[in-house]
Amino acid sequence: MAEPLNIALAGLGTVGGGVVRLIETNAELITRRARRPIRIAAVSARDRSKDRGVDLSRYDWEDDAAALAARADVDVVVEMVGGSDGPALALARNAIAGGKSLVTANKAMIAHHGLELAAAAEAAHVALKFEAAVAGGIPVIKGLSEGAAANAIDRVYGILNGTCNYILSTMEDTGADFADVLGEAQRLGYAEADPTFDIEGTDAAHKLSILAAIAFGSRLRFDAVETMGISRLKAADIDQARALGYVIRLLGMAEVDRSAGNGAGGAARLFQRVRPHLVPINHPLAHVDGATNAVVAEGNFMGRLLFQGAGAGDGPTASAVVADIIDIARGETGAAFSMPTGELEAMEPAESGHRTGSAYIRFTVPDRPGVLADITAAMRDAGVSIESLIQKGDPDQDGEVILALVTHPGPERAVTEALRILEGSQSLTAQPLVMQIIGA
Amino acid sequence: MAEPLNIALAGLGTVGGGVVRLIETNAELITRRARRPIRIAAVSARDRSKDRGVDLSRYDWEDDAAALAARADVDVVVEMVGGSDGPALALARNAIAGGKSLVTANKAMIAHHGLELAAAAEAAHVALKFEAAVAGGIPVIKGLSEGAAANAIDRVYGILNGTCNYILSTMEDTGADFADVLGEAQRLGYAEADPTFDIEGTDAAHKLSILAAIAFGSRLRFDAVETMGISRLKAADIDQARALGYVIRLLGMAEVDRSAGNGAGGAARLFQRVRPHLVPINHPLAHVDGATNAVVAEGNFMGRLLFQGAGAGDGPTASAVVADIIDIARGETGAAFSMPTGELEAMEPAESGHRTGSAYIRFTVPDRPGVLADITAAMRDAGVSIESLIQKGDPDQDGEVILALVTHPGPERAVTEALRILEGSQSLTAQPLVMQIIGA
Repeated sequence: MAEPLNIALAGLGTVGGGVVRLIETNAELITRRARRPIRIAAVSARDRSKDRGVDLSRYDWEDDAAALAARADVDVVVEMVGGSDGPALALARNAIAGGKSLVTANKAMIAHHGLELAAAAEAAHVALKFEAAVAGGIPVIKGLSEGAAANAIDRVYGILNGTCNYILSTMEDTGADFADVLGEAQRLGYAEADPTFDIEGTDAAHKLSILAAIAFGSRLRFDAVETMGISRLKAADIDQARALGYVIRLLGMAEVDRSAGNGAGGAARLFQRVRPHLVPINHPLAHVDGATNAVVAEGNFMGRLLFQGAGAGDGPTASAVVADIIDIARGETGAAFSMPTGELEAMEPAESGHRTGSAYIRFTVPDRPGVLADITAAMRDAGVSIESLIQKGDPDQDGEVILALVTHPGPERAVTEALRILEGSQSLTAQPLVMQIIGA
Repeated sequence: MAEPLNIALAGLGTVGGGVVRLIETNAELITRRARRPIRIAAVSARDRSKDRGVDLSRYDWEDDAAALAARADVDVVVEMVGGSDGPALALARNAIAGGKSLVTANKAMIAHHGLELAAAAEAAHVALKFEAAVAGGIPVIKGLSEGAAANAIDRVYGILNGTCNYILSTMEDTGADFADVLGEAQRLGYAEADPTFDIEGTDAAHKLSILAAIAFGSRLRFDAVETMGISRLKAADIDQARALGYVIRLLGMAEVDRSAGNGAGGAARLFQRVRPHLVPINHPLAHVDGATNAVVAEGNFMGRLLFQGAGAGDGPTASAVVADIIDIARGETGAAFSMPTGELEAMEPAESGHRTGSAYIRFTVPDRPGVLADITAAMRDAGVSIESLIQKGDPDQDGEVILALVTHPGPERAVTEALRILEGSQSLTAQPLVMQIIGA
């Protein structure tokens, strides 16, 4: 039997506790698959006395996580502290500088500092791995960087935030409005006390920027993700979408834009957007319900590939963390972003105005004559062709009515222009909401 | 730049041609991902003059594929000849014995001889890889052996044959009977001139036995797969299933059976079955249409994971073949079956009679009084509880009527016993058809 691989765990919250349980429960199996035992050499967390449902007394304890990076008996530091900067980043930098491989579930840190850490890992000849940072238990980073390695991939998209997907599919099932479902999700533990990162799309944007870099071989650009969350969605939007044959899903969507109109005269640019979309009911993503995640990638030889599974939770996330550790134990650790950082292509953000497609636009309007004429005139003047228009039901207690409109396929900039024309109009009582409609 | 990895291609049919096209089209990208060029050193096929749509003049030609295994300038032999034995197996053995890694898309050869070849590869310290042998372009072998490596997996199942799935979903869409759809599929090239391996489930059984070995860490037992194909299905079965809220899919299903009733007193046994199943319409597999493949694996930490994509075709299959070659170029080649063959657990085949579940049973009966009484009496005597029973429409030209029955959950052996009681009965004009119903 080969020497054990010695690991140190920093952070013993939900994920950290799951990693300890997994390594203990599946120890014999992991040793057979990794061809050597994986040994927890030391652990560190804020509060030693907290009951985590696992017996930590057999492992060395460090009060200061930073000490893990300095231990001579540690091969791999597993960072589960969280946060894009602060102690997590300091630990990551120190571990790599100290010649230790780093495994992390920290999407925010990788989205902000992944290229720096990957370059440092290359220089130090250690591994940097973060399968658990994207889509929880789904091995999508491995799937794209290794399984799909032979393909030029120009498009990757999916459902990357389980909290939002839980809220949207519950709104679908119950007819309740966003705020009510969010409150219930918080009571049930499906949403954080401060849900901003989830519901405003930031968490999905972190994951999307990581996926895009790996799929396209491009330099990671989290700063360039256009992000809109789900907090402005109403039960009426879900109803309208259903009547039209769609469901609403928060999608992260990234593409290599090689079109002439992308702002770069045809050079490849990077399009990245997180936004609620209308998804046709015969599309595989329309059947992804609850806290499940799913990622679709389209390659020039493999065609369309879909990965689906549990996007969060201690078990699935621990599964991804330990898969990374097993890869390191086997000595099978490629470059963090599938190729060395120096070979990743720098792509400027794409302008999205030339993108064409159908859109759903929801207006909140006063219940009086002339409103429809104002809106349709703005559409005409901006060159937006209307496919259907539904004015929904009776006015609410504020005398407002929902007006939902679906456009024929056309450039996104035309819709933007129509909304600009309507800015400040007395015919709108709230900012309109635009959602793209994806094909089947 | 590192030295090129030199490969030799044996067999230049659909898949072989696709591999050449892929390596030429994506050469620059592959070099960046593999960290070295992949060079085709030599090729071999039966007919040199055949037009394959690719220019082969730049590659050395060998009339005899066996010569590829002997060339000093070859690191990897890619076997795309096909067939479980004969020239393909001889080439595979010789290549490995000659110290060359072997990549193959040959599911029949791996199902029959995979353990022998894997042991030979271990002894020769070369790689044996066969991602393309299961589910075409879907990286499911990598997903299970590496992505899910931290999990004990007790169940893996899925849609493993694109021809059958195409036929079943076309029967669904058109209402046509099996024979008509098969004929059309043959005309369109979706089914072989001799479709036996596909429609009788053998091809799916090959793939299932490979998946089971990798998922469970068990010794491959193709001989122990219970196999039934789709040739006995009627349009009436599809209709009945739909009315009950199900679709029919040919599933390969493998489980580690640890129950007391498995015939081994509680020791783990291997359950493997290919059979048409009723799948609830809210299950992800119910939405897998056409020639698409999909595999579900359930792990003790990751939960349920789904992989879906193109199960056949030159592009997807070439994508999987070249992914294996890139792994070899990177030096990231684990054991063929995820762990050394000596550590794979020998599991005897499970007896399936104690398995419980609901079943769909279709009887073809004469249109006369008393038939229903005979059938329900047999069910009662065997202890099968009937949930619903539908006698469909008018008798056909032979005076026969279709009777479809769904059982309450119960042991499979009770259904077998009921059908035994009915054997030879004048109340049946054809052998009944049994399909298991899977849960959501």
